[in-house]
Amino acid sequence: MTALPTVRTKADLRARVAAWRAAGERVALVPTMGALHEGHLSLVGIGRANAEHVVASLFVNPTQFSPAEDFDAYPRDEARDAELLAAAGCDLLYAPGAEEMYPPGFATSVAVAHVSEGMEGAARPHHFGGVATVVTKLLTQAAPDVAVFGEKDYQQLQVIRRLTRDLDLPVEIIGGPTMRADDGLALSSRNAYLSAQQRAIAPALNRALKACAQAVAKGAAVDASEAAAIEAILAAGFDSVDYLEVRSAEYLERLGPGPIDAPARVLTAARLGRTRLLDNEPI
Amino acid sequence: MTALPTVRTKADLRARVAAWRAAGERVALVPTMGALHEGHLSLVGIGRANAEHVVASLFVNPTQFSPAEDFDAYPRDEARDAELLAAAGCDLLYAPGAEEMYPPGFATSVAVAHVSEGMEGAARPHHFGGVATVVTKLLTQAAPDVAVFGEKDYQQLQVIRRLTRDLDLPVEIIGGPTMRADDGLALSSRNAYLSAQQRAIAPALNRALKACAQAVAKGAAVDASEAAAIEAILAAGFDSVDYLEVRSAEYLERLGPGPIDAPARVLTAARLGRTRLLDNEPI
Repeated sequence: MTALPTVRTKADLRARVAAWRAAGERVALVPTMGALHEGHLSLVGIGRANAEHVVASLFVNPTQFSPAEDFDAYPRDEARDAELLAAAGCDLLYAPGAEEMYPPGFATSVAVAHVSEGMEGAARPHHFGGVATVVTKLLTQAAPDVAVFGEKDYQQLQVIRRLTRDLDLPVEIIGGPTMRADDGLALSSRNAYLSAQQRAIAPALNRALKACAQAVAKGAAVDASEAAAIEAILAAGFDSVDYLEVRSAEYLERLGPGPIDAPARVLTAARLGRTRLLDNEPI
Repeated sequence: MTALPTVRTKADLRARVAAWRAAGERVALVPTMGALHEGHLSLVGIGRANAEHVVASLFVNPTQFSPAEDFDAYPRDEARDAELLAAAGCDLLYAPGAEEMYPPGFATSVAVAHVSEGMEGAARPHHFGGVATVVTKLLTQAAPDVAVFGEKDYQQLQVIRRLTRDLDLPVEIIGGPTMRADDGLALSSRNAYLSAQQRAIAPALNRALKACAQAVAKGAAVDASEAAAIEAILAAGFDSVDYLEVRSAEYLERLGPGPIDAPARVLTAARLGRTRLLDNEPI
């Protein structure tokens, strides 16, 4: 086991990154909230493939949780996460405290219109504002050449692409493909909450998305394909579907109701007992 | 007359700045909306004193004007401004078009709470949102070592200091002292709108602020000192006072009503005919 070098202030982070930069070496940032699984570690691998050094950040950002959400209960095990990151080829962990990120007097927020509206933005009203602000800060603090985010949270990825372009942050955003179990279930720390019975039902979510994407790609109407997918998810045993929508791939605009002929994505969130699962597929 | 090198894209801007940086030279940015006067040129001088190279930006930012304000009528004379900048020691003009700053799909905004509320924020509801967003962009585009803004727009300066700190932008913000006519009137492109008679009345604004600052510094109550200053401004012939407030120097919190014992600033906006004049003084 290798101890992963860890810094807790932006000053120390910048000193490390500046030294690498001065040597002509590229730096990748992989922002995380901990509770790491194979999905996160695959992002570290993508970072390694695109830069000489990979920095992972670990910060459970309070401003992207609503008061009703599980900020206090969010799993925290830095030692375990650091071990996994080191094994995956990460060079440096940046684990700032809340007072480093939001010192007294903090008053600034970054908001992204349109792409952050609807879907997760509707379900969690303050979520993307918190995400946009903290990601802007992580990108200006670390000043990486590339930053890697998972396609699992596809709407979040598009919000981050948008703010990076709009605020002229000199970083390339790379989306990492969703890691899946053999039966297609997207890896998520929330999968641990599923009972054996729920775990058996869960892969129906991705099956329905794939069928929907395939149908729309072949020329089926968007509205009928969305409805069929929702029906299949509920028939498989999910308790409810928060949303299941075909949207344009970049700006996430609503498409349909008829057939479409442009890059698109189908995105969903559905509930299985108390667990809320997200997934999406390209069209 | 020296022609001032001019770039119109962030890519060209970054290439110039990167070349200077590679040579170990520091860069100062002086953001302007053109219509330059001695006040702006003094900021270029401050830039020169703090860096080997001074870049001035010239962009009349549409998003900080309300529909009722004078965006279309705002004076534009790039050739004249470029000449003045070159003579003042500026090395490079960055004059992007609106499509370079806000390409199709642009959707991101930066907002600063508290310090941007009240005073100019109350008089011009969308103003500071527009300012915060465009200044964030100019700072990330140019990536200067220092950026210089006039103390004449003191609330704007504090909004910019706040967002720079909160978004971890690696730049030092320097406030440039307000340039004044011999009789104390703060230099402003709006002074040109004043009739001879109004011009004779105008210095009363700064006289009243200085008297207010002096009284509060000597222990007078904030509320009585503010009221006396407003009275003096109206008695001198101003048509109305939008606000005149003693505020804390950094976060611009309301102070008083009694005596105070902390760094403060008194800020005002008042109308003389159709012209709105701003000024402020330290306490």
